[in-house]
Amino acid sequence: MTLLYEGKAKRMFETDDPFILKVEYKDEVTAGNGQKHDFAPGKGRLNNLITSEMFERLENAGIPSHFIECINDTTQMVRRVEIIPLEVVVRNLAAGNITKRLGFRKGAEFAPPLIEFYLKDDALGDPLINRAHVIQMGIADNDEIDELKKRANQINVALIDIMEQMGLQLVDFKIEFGRDTRGNILLADEISPDTCRIWDAKTGENFDKDVYREDTGSIIDTYQKFYEKMEATK
Amino acid sequence: MTLLYEGKAKRMFETDDPFILKVEYKDEVTAGNGQKHDFAPGKGRLNNLITSEMFERLENAGIPSHFIECINDTTQMVRRVEIIPLEVVVRNLAAGNITKRLGFRKGAEFAPPLIEFYLKDDALGDPLINRAHVIQMGIADNDEIDELKKRANQINVALIDIMEQMGLQLVDFKIEFGRDTRGNILLADEISPDTCRIWDAKTGENFDKDVYREDTGSIIDTYQKFYEKMEATK
Repeated sequence: MTLLYEGKAKRMFETDDPFILKVEYKDEVTAGNGQKHDFAPGKGRLNNLITSEMFERLENAGIPSHFIECINDTTQMVRRVEIIPLEVVVRNLAAGNITKRLGFRKGAEFAPPLIEFYLKDDALGDPLINRAHVIQMGIADNDEIDELKKRANQINVALIDIMEQMGLQLVDFKIEFGRDTRGNILLADEISPDTCRIWDAKTGENFDKDVYREDTGSIIDTYQKFYEKMEATK
Repeated sequence: MTLLYEGKAKRMFETDDPFILKVEYKDEVTAGNGQKHDFAPGKGRLNNLITSEMFERLENAGIPSHFIECINDTTQMVRRVEIIPLEVVVRNLAAGNITKRLGFRKGAEFAPPLIEFYLKDDALGDPLINRAHVIQMGIADNDEIDELKKRANQINVALIDIMEQMGLQLVDFKIEFGRDTRGNILLADEISPDTCRIWDAKTGENFDKDVYREDTGSIIDTYQKFYEKMEATK
């Protein structure tokens, strides 16, 4: 099968069906726009299983995604979409770059949740952009931006609910969207502890990639615990 | 008189009238958030005279500002306003930080003009922020943001007209707004070659602070020529 794309955490392959792609999750972990980079055996399996379960639960909550099915530990089948080159970030509490960039105190609450668009461009370091930039760059029009924000808010509500059942607090997350061949917007990419910031609701303990970014724990043990909590609420 | 505030380019003093402040333009020039810093004898006079004339012409074009009158070469009287801590940037063509930050080609046209908000915060390096950040920080509400953008567009139209009469092209500019004691929003701060990027319509020659930022000419000669062109179109 033809390799279509290889990113930091995933490989995408074409299949016999032009509308379907195969996604293989890799055992690699990176942070700081690739500045920190390691091999993490078992991470591909965990993020594939977690993302598959997340997309299934979101589908049940009425949120369509590119996900079709998980076919083995590290592989899932997805609908082919053209990725919209935006990292859509939703923040319920302040953490990570927003505390340094804008001076918010870690843990400060955003009400309503804050939605940000970052341009997906490694060479530029994925800079924050505003609505006018998105339109000027021809990435999405005004109505599509409204639609992306509406979806982001719906996904936030659904993910908060999923995490609450697991005794966890959803701090923030990054999602990506794509357009299918008919122009429908679908949630794409992944939803995992790589792309969410998640705190234990009681202790504040991290269940996300911050354990790797900040060298405070084993990424595999952390993701495994997250996966088990998720399975326990099935 | 009590010194109320001293910035990089101006000093503001209280007067006997609690609603009126005196602004003294300084002979200092800085760039790169203060990293480059020089003494430029004559700059205070030029920017005071240019800003006074600009605010008068804008007033005639129906755009209210804090400006009352120019009382001598380096001093103007203004209405006291509480400054809204945003640098409102309007871009007609790409130049400066947007070419590096977002990869736009220098001179690329923005249609419609691009409006950006930067948080006025030297310690944070005046970061770009979006509408949701402005609201979350309590800087302005949704309606006020619409009003700021409307004013910014009106000012752009008026400034383009002023510059065109001078044979110049308005590339971009930064403005600040304030609220008077009754909550009315007024254009404030200054409008000068320090705060605008201006190219000769034919040669592309800079008539702005880029000659200082990029060490390509005398800032005083440049601002003097700009002032003379402005006086010639009175």
